[in-house]
Formats: sequence, C-alpha cells, structure tokens
Amino acid sequence: MLDVKLTIDPVKGFRVAGIHGGLKADNALDIALIVSDRPCATGAVFTTNRVKAAPVLLCQQRLKDGAGGIRAVFVNTKCANAATGATGLSNAQKVTEWVAEKAQIKPEQVLMLSTGVIGTQLPMSKIEPAVEQAYKALGQNWNNTAQAIMTTDTRPKMASVLIRTSSGEYTIAGIAKGSGMIAPNMATMLSVIVTDAKMNPAQAQSLLSSASQLTFNRIVVDGDTSTNDTVILMASGASGVQLDSATEMLQFQQALTAVCASLAKAAVRDGEGATKFITLDIRGAASDADAHTIGNTIAASPLVKTAFFGNDANWGRIIAAAGRAGVNFDPDKAKLHMVKGEALAKDDHSQEIPGLLLFENGMPTKYKEADATATIKETNIYVTLDCGVGSGRAIVWTCDLSHDYVDINGSYRS
Amino acid sequence: MLDVKLTIDPVKGFRVAGIHGGLKADNALDIALIVSDRPCATGAVFTTNRVKAAPVLLCQQRLKDGAGGIRAVFVNTKCANAATGATGLSNAQKVTEWVAEKAQIKPEQVLMLSTGVIGTQLPMSKIEPAVEQAYKALGQNWNNTAQAIMTTDTRPKMASVLIRTSSGEYTIAGIAKGSGMIAPNMATMLSVIVTDAKMNPAQAQSLLSSASQLTFNRIVVDGDTSTNDTVILMASGASGVQLDSATEMLQFQQALTAVCASLAKAAVRDGEGATKFITLDIRGAASDADAHTIGNTIAASPLVKTAFFGNDANWGRIIAAAGRAGVNFDPDKAKLHMVKGEALAKDDHSQEIPGLLLFENGMPTKYKEADATATIKETNIYVTLDCGVGSGRAIVWTCDLSHDYVDINGSYRS
Repeated sequence: MLDVKLTIDPVKGFRVAGIHGGLKADNALDIALIVSDRPCATGAVFTTNRVKAAPVLLCQQRLKDGAGGIRAVFVNTKCANAATGATGLSNAQKVTEWVAEKAQIKPEQVLMLSTGVIGTQLPMSKIEPAVEQAYKALGQNWNNTAQAIMTTDTRPKMASVLIRTSSGEYTIAGIAKGSGMIAPNMATMLSVIVTDAKMNPAQAQSLLSSASQLTFNRIVVDGDTSTNDTVILMASGASGVQLDSATEMLQFQQALTAVCASLAKAAVRDGEGATKFITLDIRGAASDADAHTIGNTIAASPLVKTAFFGNDANWGRIIAAAGRAGVNFDPDKAKLHMVKGEALAKDDHSQEIPGLLLFENGMPTKYKEADATATIKETNIYVTLDCGVGSGRAIVWTCDLSHDYVDINGSYRS
Repeated sequence: MLDVKLTIDPVKGFRVAGIHGGLKADNALDIALIVSDRPCATGAVFTTNRVKAAPVLLCQQRLKDGAGGIRAVFVNTKCANAATGATGLSNAQKVTEWVAEKAQIKPEQVLMLSTGVIGTQLPMSKIEPAVEQAYKALGQNWNNTAQAIMTTDTRPKMASVLIRTSSGEYTIAGIAKGSGMIAPNMATMLSVIVTDAKMNPAQAQSLLSSASQLTFNRIVVDGDTSTNDTVILMASGASGVQLDSATEMLQFQQALTAVCASLAKAAVRDGEGATKFITLDIRGAASDADAHTIGNTIAASPLVKTAFFGNDANWGRIIAAAGRAGVNFDPDKAKLHMVKGEALAKDDHSQEIPGLLLFENGMPTKYKEADATATIKETNIYVTLDCGVGSGRAIVWTCDLSHDYVDINGSYRS
C-alpha cells in the first residue's frame, strides 16, 4: 500500500517559499515561489475554458516551446489575471522576467499561476518587491508555500509519497488550492507537484494527464470551470532515480495518482461551505464515459446538493439527475445504494453492494426512512448507482451546497 | 400590442376547480381539475429527462392515441409519482378512471399531471374522494385552480389574452407552477393552457412547441430538469372562431407566445429564493443555438447567481461561464453591458446598447465600480453579452441564488 502523507519533507533540488506580498489583508501569505536547482521535465494540464487567464496562455506557450527546461513556478493570489487582454499577458511575462533575474535563469524557464478575481489587472507595484522577498525566503517551508496559494480554502493542501526502488528512493510531493469553481472535464484548481525522479518531458506529460483524469477531473464542487485551472508536474531528476522499466513507470503512475487523489479529495472536503464528503460510485453504465457523465450531473445538481446539506435522503433527486445526464439511463434497470463512509469495505463487482438499497425496479424499496436519514446525516456518504445496462464505471467526489457557499460567493470580491 | 392580463376570465366551454384534498397541510389547495364540455385538440411538451414520471408516460400514450379527444386534466401536488414503477403507472390510470367516471367520459380523454416528491406512491385513499370533491367544485374559479397546482411557489401564476378577429373573439388562458428544478431544454414546470379557438391537434402541437421554445425553454432557476415537466394546450373551439388564414394563425402564435412568456417569467420571478430577475441577452453568437447555450450556461452558474445575490458586479464570472459553454466564444471579441430593467428601450441591432460597458477587447473597461454596483443592486437587471462572432441571438431569463434556495431545498420533503 502507498503511504500518502499530508505533509511534505524536503524534496531534493527544490526550494520553496510562501510569503505575504501585500495582496491579502491581515498579513496573510499570498505569494508562492518554487525553484528547482536544475531544469525539470514538466507536464501540465489546463482549464478547458475558452476564456483562459494570461498565466495559462503563458504556461502553454512556454511548455510548447520547451517543456524540458522549466526551473521555477511563481504563484499569486487575489488576482486571476483573466479577462485582462494584452495588458494582462504582458504583466505576466514581466513577472516571470523578475523571477528569472533573481534566479539567474531565463524567463522562458519560469511558469506563472494566478488565482483570484477575474477581470482585474495584476498589482504590479506590489508584485515586484514580492518577487525579491519570495526569492530571499526560499527554503523548505512547504506548509507556508501551500498556505500562500490558498483563496477561499480554509486549510493548506499537501500530499507526498516516498518511493523506494532498487536504484534508490524518490519523492512525489504536491500542493493544491481549491475550493470553489470546481467542475469536471478540466485540470481543476491550482496544483504544483514536484518529484526528484528522472524522466523526460513527454513522460511527465503523459503521467500527469493520466493521473489527472482519475483525480482532479473527478471532483465537483459547483460545476463552474475556472479560467485559471492548472496542474503542473516538475520532475527534476535530482534523486538520480531514473524510471527505466515498465514496472517502475507503473509504480510512479500509481504513486502520482495517489498524491493527486489526496489533493483532489482535500479540495472537495474543503469545498466552499461544504459540510459533507460524498462519493458517487456509478456502475453498470454503458461505458466509463457515460458513468462519468452521470456522476458529474448528479454531483453538480443543486437539488441533490441541498438535499444532502439538509440531511434529507431525497434520493429521487439523484435518479432524476441521472435521467437528465443525456446518456443511456433506464430507471427500471437501476439500483441505488447509500452507506456511510468514503470507500466500500469490499469493492468487488461480484460482491453484494453494502448499505441501504433505496431504489430498484423503477420504484422505491421498502426501506425505513429513519435508516436513510441516519445515513445521510453522516459526514462521509458513499452512494452507489448501478445503472444495470453495461459495465462502465466512474467514481466522482463531491460535496453538499450550504448557506456558506452562498455567503462566500456573494461577497467574494469584498 | 397584446394585452396580457395576469388574471383569467371565464373561457367558453371550460370549467375548473382547485380544492383541498388532504395532501398539503393547513387546508391548502392541492388538487386541480380542468374540464371541457367538448373534445379538445391538444398539444403538449414534456420533460426530456429519461426518468419520466408516470403521469408523463400516461399523457404521452394518450396523446399519441388520440390528441383530438381530450376532455379533462387532473393535477395533484405533493407527490410527483416519479420513480414509482408499474404501481405508479397503474395508480395514475386509476385516477383518470375516477375522473372519467365522474365526467361521464372515457379515461382516454383524461390527462394527469403530478408534482411533488419523487419516489413516493400516490396517496390513493385521499385522491379518490378528492376527485369527487373537485368535480363537484367545477366552476370558473381560475385563481383557486392556479393556487392548487403550486408547490414551493409563493403565488399563483395566471395569464390570459382576449383576441378579436373578424369572425369573433377567442381567449387563450394559462396557469403554471414553478419554481425550482427549472432548466433549459425541456418543457419546464407544469402548465395548462386552454383556448376556445378552433384548430386541429397537429396545429395545437405545432403552435405549443414553437411558443415553448421561446418561453418555457428560455428560463433557468437552478439547472435541474424535472421528471414531471409538462405543458398542455387544449383547444376546444367553443368560441366558434376557426383559425383559417395564415394571418390568423400567426396572430394566435404570437398571443400564445405572449401568454407562455408571461407564465415563464412569472416562474423565474418566483424562483425558489429568488431576489432578482435577470435577462440575459446573448447576441453576436455564431448561431441562435450557440447564443442559447451560452445564455443557459451563464444562467445555471452558481458563481454568477451568488454574485447577483450578493450585489457584487463580478462580471468576470459571466465571461468565465460563457467561456466554458462549449461553443464558439472569444473573449477578445466580446462586449458586456449591464443596465437596469427587463427590456431595452430600443431593441435594435443598429442602435448602441444602453447601459454600462464593463468588458471589451478582452479586458475590463474603465467603468466606475460604484456605477456597476448601483446597477446590480436593482431587482431587474438586463445583461447584454455581444459575442462579436456572428448574428446568433437568444434571450434567457434567470434569477439569483440565495440562502432561501438552500433552505427550501434542504427541507423540501419535510
């Protein structure tokens, strides 16, 4: 079993910092910098929104030009630098020039991530001194770095694993920020993942894309897709461990997926106003893609989400959401189970699904309402919807919709 | 100009009733019955959800079998009779048999609409006496009838027009209920529209489909699609006015559309927890369909909706929602205006769009934040997004997302 830690020990060759650059109030950390002592093979996944923030456009260009030479990632909060036109892009470039000057590298070796309000320009007069301050603060304080990329997050999100191989050991470590505007079919949120394992840029891209598909693309807070979503994987090779064999590559893939899953689930758990963590296990769909679509539709349904918040086991809304997902779904063939927890004790298709069977043969079973209510009152709820039409499966993680979501998003800019 | 009234005078040949049948608490009206003294040419539009309630399946079958002979519509609240399997369907049939017996017509001439909780069976022992009670109460009390189909609605929704033609006058009158689970691409909510004009079933269907496309399909409260959405148009011909010429048919189409628009907008205005009525005018899209998709995506965005609720003119979320709509959208070509009101004083493509220009050339304009805040504090807000890539246009009506939505939907079954 992989032992994913929620903290990060030093990763060979990387120095990091999280500082207060005057963007957030109350001296809160708001600027992060991650620097590698050597060029990194770098992969990235980005938002699918057609409105892409300036830093996204900048990263995409630089990774196209040379994904093998990345040395640094700079992150600012409070300003998404999205819908900011040519000014926004030139500002982002300028910031990376400042970072490059300090680190004595080329601007093309610097990536930038931004998060915050859409439609305002970067406060350049604050960011210029913040670059210097961040550079001076570089060290091993991953906790500060994770804190410095937070927006409406209530806690920093970190995950790491140490992998031992016959040729030595390497680390995969990541930080992420949520926690609203989280939707399927995109990279989701900001996350920077570093490793001292050695690989080439194509491998970094392929490994990250696969891991994201099963993790960051499987979480839903509110169904909105950000203009800034970016996940970056930087592989420095400083451990000297090269992923040579197929076995080693598979081991890395699994470890990276575990780190990404931990960060993705942490984002949902800390979703804006979330009080519950809900796992939607969609089985028996016509295809995995159909299962994913059904899971996403249920997860984004305001009616489903408010029912969970209200401790109302109104499972009819889950069936109704599945029915409007636009893919093959026949209520007469579907079965719906609900049980407390984050995972099934035995996750095996040949086993009976545990928990309360609420719906089958197109109608409710004779379950006791008190049992259903007891289950939905749990903080962690596992919902299994077996569609009964095929063998497609997808797991989607989501949260409920509460008063606090409305509060947080009704006053985000103030 | 069409004079749409928000009340209904008697419509020739129709008798209606709204009574308390013991389904709702506090003696609230919960059962409605509409009976025509002769067979009606009947058109209908239904939910696109693959989970269709028993009454929807029943109506679809009966209209397929003979849309020319409908005499009565029975409506119950508190129980959607959806996800209720064979029992649910046979219960719905039974109710229409009771109605047919009272009215001395065939069960096949009776339609049924249900709304309420999904996944519970009809309380048949209450409905049987309610049918008799409703039949006895038949008269001209449209206000009671409109009230009796309400769920979370806070007020009854009625609209009617009287049309004078050279061969006489006829009325179009409709009632509707909202107010949550309202999404695009479906019939939306329950509505029964009656007219004493004369037409054949194919005409009734065609007229209703066209009118719904521009009205009921253009409103969004929360993006959820119900299992029960049904809009029915019954044309009795009791006025003796036959729609002979193309001009008369067009006149009817416009009048029906005006009635449907009034009901649709009333549903949004009374949307669950709504505090604002927002008109999204999407112009310059690659096609009308693209404009509709962009409008729907903005309207269903929780982040857009909460910003409106919070009086925060965070227009960047509107641009971001447009960007994830999945259709042609280029922020560099788009322009976003906002102004108070429900309609533009001059709605003409050749005219300058009035109101505050917030965004163009891919970046914010130099507008004053106080002006934007003043606009978003209005109860009626008109947003124009000119995409700048074509001539497609669609208007979508929506509302904000408030604390009350969460309250209403967190405790709907209790």
